[in-house]
Amino acid sequence: MAQNQIGREIPQKFAESFGVFEGQYAKKHEYKRASGQVAGVTPGDSKMLGSIREAITKSGLKDGMTVSFHHHFREGDAVLNMVMAEIADMGIRNLTLASSSIANVHDPIIDHIRNGVITNITSSGLRDRVGAAISHGIMENPVVIRSHGGRARAIEKGELHIDVAFLGAPSSDCYGNANGSHGKATCGSLGYARVDAEFADKVIIITDNLVPYPNTPISIPQNHVDYVVVVESIGDPNGIAKGATRITSNPKELLIAENACKVITASPYYKEGFSFQAGSGGSTLAVARFLADAMRKDSIKAGYALGGLTGHLCEMLEEGLIGKVIDTQSFDRGAIDSIKNNANHYEISASFYANPGGKGAAVDQLDVVVLSALEIDTDFNVNVMTGSDGVIRGASGGHSDTAAGAKLSLILTPIIRGRIPTIVEKVNTVITPGESVDVVVTELGIAVNPGRKDLIEAFAKLDVPQFTIEELKEKAYAVVGTPDPIIYDEKVVALIEYRDGSLIDVVRKVRD
Amino acid sequence: MAQNQIGREIPQKFAESFGVFEGQYAKKHEYKRASGQVAGVTPGDSKMLGSIREAITKSGLKDGMTVSFHHHFREGDAVLNMVMAEIADMGIRNLTLASSSIANVHDPIIDHIRNGVITNITSSGLRDRVGAAISHGIMENPVVIRSHGGRARAIEKGELHIDVAFLGAPSSDCYGNANGSHGKATCGSLGYARVDAEFADKVIIITDNLVPYPNTPISIPQNHVDYVVVVESIGDPNGIAKGATRITSNPKELLIAENACKVITASPYYKEGFSFQAGSGGSTLAVARFLADAMRKDSIKAGYALGGLTGHLCEMLEEGLIGKVIDTQSFDRGAIDSIKNNANHYEISASFYANPGGKGAAVDQLDVVVLSALEIDTDFNVNVMTGSDGVIRGASGGHSDTAAGAKLSLILTPIIRGRIPTIVEKVNTVITPGESVDVVVTELGIAVNPGRKDLIEAFAKLDVPQFTIEELKEKAYAVVGTPDPIIYDEKVVALIEYRDGSLIDVVRKVRD
Repeated sequence: MAQNQIGREIPQKFAESFGVFEGQYAKKHEYKRASGQVAGVTPGDSKMLGSIREAITKSGLKDGMTVSFHHHFREGDAVLNMVMAEIADMGIRNLTLASSSIANVHDPIIDHIRNGVITNITSSGLRDRVGAAISHGIMENPVVIRSHGGRARAIEKGELHIDVAFLGAPSSDCYGNANGSHGKATCGSLGYARVDAEFADKVIIITDNLVPYPNTPISIPQNHVDYVVVVESIGDPNGIAKGATRITSNPKELLIAENACKVITASPYYKEGFSFQAGSGGSTLAVARFLADAMRKDSIKAGYALGGLTGHLCEMLEEGLIGKVIDTQSFDRGAIDSIKNNANHYEISASFYANPGGKGAAVDQLDVVVLSALEIDTDFNVNVMTGSDGVIRGASGGHSDTAAGAKLSLILTPIIRGRIPTIVEKVNTVITPGESVDVVVTELGIAVNPGRKDLIEAFAKLDVPQFTIEELKEKAYAVVGTPDPIIYDEKVVALIEYRDGSLIDVVRKVRD
Repeated sequence: MAQNQIGREIPQKFAESFGVFEGQYAKKHEYKRASGQVAGVTPGDSKMLGSIREAITKSGLKDGMTVSFHHHFREGDAVLNMVMAEIADMGIRNLTLASSSIANVHDPIIDHIRNGVITNITSSGLRDRVGAAISHGIMENPVVIRSHGGRARAIEKGELHIDVAFLGAPSSDCYGNANGSHGKATCGSLGYARVDAEFADKVIIITDNLVPYPNTPISIPQNHVDYVVVVESIGDPNGIAKGATRITSNPKELLIAENACKVITASPYYKEGFSFQAGSGGSTLAVARFLADAMRKDSIKAGYALGGLTGHLCEMLEEGLIGKVIDTQSFDRGAIDSIKNNANHYEISASFYANPGGKGAAVDQLDVVVLSALEIDTDFNVNVMTGSDGVIRGASGGHSDTAAGAKLSLILTPIIRGRIPTIVEKVNTVITPGESVDVVVTELGIAVNPGRKDLIEAFAKLDVPQFTIEELKEKAYAVVGTPDPIIYDEKVVALIEYRDGSLIDVVRKVRD
């Protein structure tokens, strides 16, 4: 058993093949960029195929290969299930599923695992039934969890080689020029899919909206595409994109957001031209509203916002409170309309967004990021992957990427949820190491990472109660008691790669 | 001596290393895409360097390596000379210069060749003094001439590996996000530069217009850039982009253009949604005007135009006569303003434009292309490279790419220029093989390639005199006599790669 820099125990065989986490910037990346196979297309050749099955056949997909999908269609996705059903029906087995993430709608994966069609998985996250099945040991091989930037890194370094990418696209032309902003079932940015298209050997665009050549804007270019298949429907528009998320009316969440806004505006980063990212969770969404009010009052404009992005931020763009947004994933209808219509809303790839092994990621330039947590511990390590029962139900996402890149990272969380403390002695699973976390913001007050003496000084007169992280933990335990330890078996069901490719943690099988 | 499919003699050693031309679609391309070296950038790292010299040092440039530049700045370029002077001053020698093309302004190259700084060149073209020096044998190794698509193919297949790309950019941010549409000295599309940035080991952006992060639109993304250098001036705006070229008033050129327009509108490709490319030469520019008139009269709109592109076509875009333009090179101020302001004017890379070894090029989708010629022979082979004296003065450009891709290719030329026939028995140098050429259009009438029986039938009632190509040649010779043969030495000064990488011809040293 090896121990990594934050004291997590990593079984020797995995430690040897992946390396163990040694610090957020410890690993240096020098390599020849990976690349895909090309079969040249001659004038007159057609890329149009009649069915998913024909595309699978033409792609040369065989037992043991790696297939990829993107998760821009979220709970509305029909593509992954449609393709995997066909693959299973054709008798192809022993595949690695390398989806950028996996949603609840992808429950049929469980049967494909049982039937030996899927024997390895790498993903940002695993939800509900799939997560539970994995946590109960359904797979022989552990799932590899990667952050969005980590996945891009793994692909560009050749650690994750995609044989065939099946990429759903809300619009495409006959040569495969595709985007997510036009069509019947739009998803906005195709930021994750772009990386797969660039590096996979075979790339198949699956669309329900074939348009005349050339389709523009071009998220995925024809020179990265082998085949195009038109289907009846790539998914449910209402599952792909929901209307604007209502900002929370929960007083506790609003208080957390207000505290977070006070922290941001008191920080040295809050000035003309600053940049930030804020996600779609309850409190984080509300932060954007409080921050917009503060920016109007202080006559301060942000240079840009980075997304994963909601319509609320796009309204700030329209209002002129934000100069530009650059977007790897559009969360809701408002963001999708914005990327279609506003030239200052610019799509970027996942590699551009967060690849820690590349020639520079957008997260590196970020001033402030507002994040959430399932748990955070007294070393400031954050868990967004496993529940209080130890079962996988979350996603790594861009959490560790943005926390490592941003100059100021805030973790917003209530001190308890129901009867469960969120500030704990040791988190079940570490996704983001404590050294990347600057301030924990709760309804009771904040705790600043003692490593950030500059911030402790900057916040000396802040109008928010300040505690040590241990004090916050004690307050949580005082309300709900010390949580019972989770009983795990030895078997490792998931490997948690840090964004640099080393192992920051593992998830073990929960005892039945 | 080997002979290729069109009877051109290729010295054995070159035939063996490159292969010889066997037909426009003969070569099949199956390969693993090349890739560049990556040195990972960590949050807090700066890419900004203080000088060109510091960038050369940091890039690790050494004797024998390959450096690249783009030619989007045309006769206004200051970057190539500035960088090469510094390289020469640092004592680095024996370099391969892989510029996408070479202009008159690049005459200092001659000294760098004489001094052993540059010992190999690959380029689309060579003008005036550099071309003459090469033709007179100044270099030991032959220059490799590649079409725009052929260069992209050579880079993507790894036949041309770029160690360091020095890419001038009219605007960039501190992380290297660059475009050509904003700044003091704009050039529009950065289509050629994009390929270099993607595949070179080290990429240096040289700009005179540093803007706040993130610079958008993004032609070259930060994750393809190692360093950024700010200089006083990347070049002369008036040399980079001239105002709209006046359409010719030469009656002979207008007659050729009118004949070409009649050919296009009588062809089966002239219908709603058709596509075309027309360059910037005298007659070709006038074709756009005649074609616009016809399209208005016939209520026909083009789906898209492909560029290399002038402001005249952008006016047709504004008017709604063309639905979209996709652009790898913006020829004039009108085109540059258009790519900045019109969302239907979309930038594409040279690989997207014309790479014959990739997963599909834009030229493959083209209905009609209008091209010019220095000479065309009775086998329909076209020369756009060497003058009637056998001296290199032209450029391969996208000539063979578009001719091979388009369903209908027209070559516009007067039958004589001055006292020199343009329709000849054998062209001095073949850039585009006769099988790619469909119709030759002159002031006297047209000659249809006998291989295109469908067109001969379609043009049965065309209101333009029709001849065989031999008849046109006889008419030219009748006026100016049979041209004297050029006396060449044995020494090969340039290898003409067909777009697929095989040798379609060589250029020999002219006798002094």
